[in-house]
Amino acid sequence: MRWRLLVAYDGRGFHGFADQPGVPTVAGALAGALARATRAAEPLRLVCAGRTDAGVHARGQVVHVDLPEPLPEVRDRRAGGGARPMSGADLVRLVNRQLAPAVVLRRADPAQPGFDARRSAVARHYRYLVWNAPVPDPLLSPVAWHVPDALDLRAMAAAADAVIGGHDFRSFCRRARGAGPDVPLERHVHDATWSAATGPEVGGEGTGLLLRFDITADAFCHQMVRSLVSACVDVGRGRRNVADLVALLRSATRAGAPAPAPPHGLCLVDVAYAP
Amino acid sequence: MRWRLLVAYDGRGFHGFADQPGVPTVAGALAGALARATRAAEPLRLVCAGRTDAGVHARGQVVHVDLPEPLPEVRDRRAGGGARPMSGADLVRLVNRQLAPAVVLRRADPAQPGFDARRSAVARHYRYLVWNAPVPDPLLSPVAWHVPDALDLRAMAAAADAVIGGHDFRSFCRRARGAGPDVPLERHVHDATWSAATGPEVGGEGTGLLLRFDITADAFCHQMVRSLVSACVDVGRGRRNVADLVALLRSATRAGAPAPAPPHGLCLVDVAYAP
Repeated sequence: MRWRLLVAYDGRGFHGFADQPGVPTVAGALAGALARATRAAEPLRLVCAGRTDAGVHARGQVVHVDLPEPLPEVRDRRAGGGARPMSGADLVRLVNRQLAPAVVLRRADPAQPGFDARRSAVARHYRYLVWNAPVPDPLLSPVAWHVPDALDLRAMAAAADAVIGGHDFRSFCRRARGAGPDVPLERHVHDATWSAATGPEVGGEGTGLLLRFDITADAFCHQMVRSLVSACVDVGRGRRNVADLVALLRSATRAGAPAPAPPHGLCLVDVAYAP
Repeated sequence: MRWRLLVAYDGRGFHGFADQPGVPTVAGALAGALARATRAAEPLRLVCAGRTDAGVHARGQVVHVDLPEPLPEVRDRRAGGGARPMSGADLVRLVNRQLAPAVVLRRADPAQPGFDARRSAVARHYRYLVWNAPVPDPLLSPVAWHVPDALDLRAMAAAADAVIGGHDFRSFCRRARGAGPDVPLERHVHDATWSAATGPEVGGEGTGLLLRFDITADAFCHQMVRSLVSACVDVGRGRRNVADLVALLRSATRAGAPAPAPPHGLCLVDVAYAP
């Protein structure tokens, strides 16, 4: 039976989501834990909504997996030790016991017929955090890019505005290995905003500004969010202006594009599906 | 000359602030980095405002240290490579290059005459974070205690109210090794509050509640904040009520006191000095 999983992870310990032989990946860790929990005889194949890169975090990654049917029974201590079918809550408990807190299964539900975590997704929401302060913050450093330069947040917001809509994002995407030049890189950005959060949970009073980039699109190409963040931060620093960014977008070439911002500031927050 | 330092650290890699032979401590790391930066011939002795335990974080630790005088000169690249006296900003740069992001020197300033980081402090502000959700959060787990049980925040706020004022906090303090029973454990709590933060930087929508305990007092005895947090969370869970907590406080004995909450949720936020 097909299951739909909601997954969070700290990307720092993994070479990205997608399974690769010989290196720790989120998919590899999760497939192993699910196989042990369900005593699957065959290797499990996981499909995710957003193939996050090495070091990128997630709070709302969506995954589907076909689990062996029927699932093994579990003993219910509250029901006097009687056996009952394994539920989604049991899967959550059995997986988190193995992987938390680096990887956390937030939910596990039987999927709707025809559900595909990647193909059925209609929008992805990513968030990027920038710690804008003279010195780094030890507690934010795992989740935010430290930028010590003065940043013009209004200019960055204007830069974000300029990428909203449908565009060929070729100039902000790293081409996938083996992919030809005619791979479609047209994407539709529903929303992109920069905002400042000075909440007391983050940073602390008077130490700096935590800047947040929120972007939602139908889909993203490789390194697109991090390349856009880098370009917006360049605008914030005054190294380029919004017109330069628009010209770069229209040029549809990687020449002149900035190096992507570091992965640890990025988090896949949420994936939307048609109701 | 005496210097006043403002220090932040991720407590996870250290056996607390205070120097101990053979184990990594914040004081040990900082003294080493300062000695290298200033080419001090003698070991440096650091005095801090709040002796945080193993695993406890800080964003606003205050430290004093007597540095050799005069400090070595530094070459100023902008001034054509000419030498000039080492400044506080140079110290910040030279120390952070060695220790950041685990330990960050936020500021270094010549201290006022007679300044003592510990004795001159008039108040310390600590914050404790509780992640109240069914499952852990990978990105909050370094800084917040995960409590899956339902918590009554109002009852916890009432429990916090009950500790405000001057009390003998013996029942919430671990007695220092070698200290007799007559060590004064009277402390004055200026303020203690529980509040909920559901900011988008933390956790993420719909995943749980981040609860925050803020407490300010003239001084704290050993494990006092973590013991109070633990008692308040017990009240939130319905395992004790506010009257139990008051009785425990009045009993002036460790019997019946809860085990302290884990260290990684705690952070020394700020230290106040008389103007």
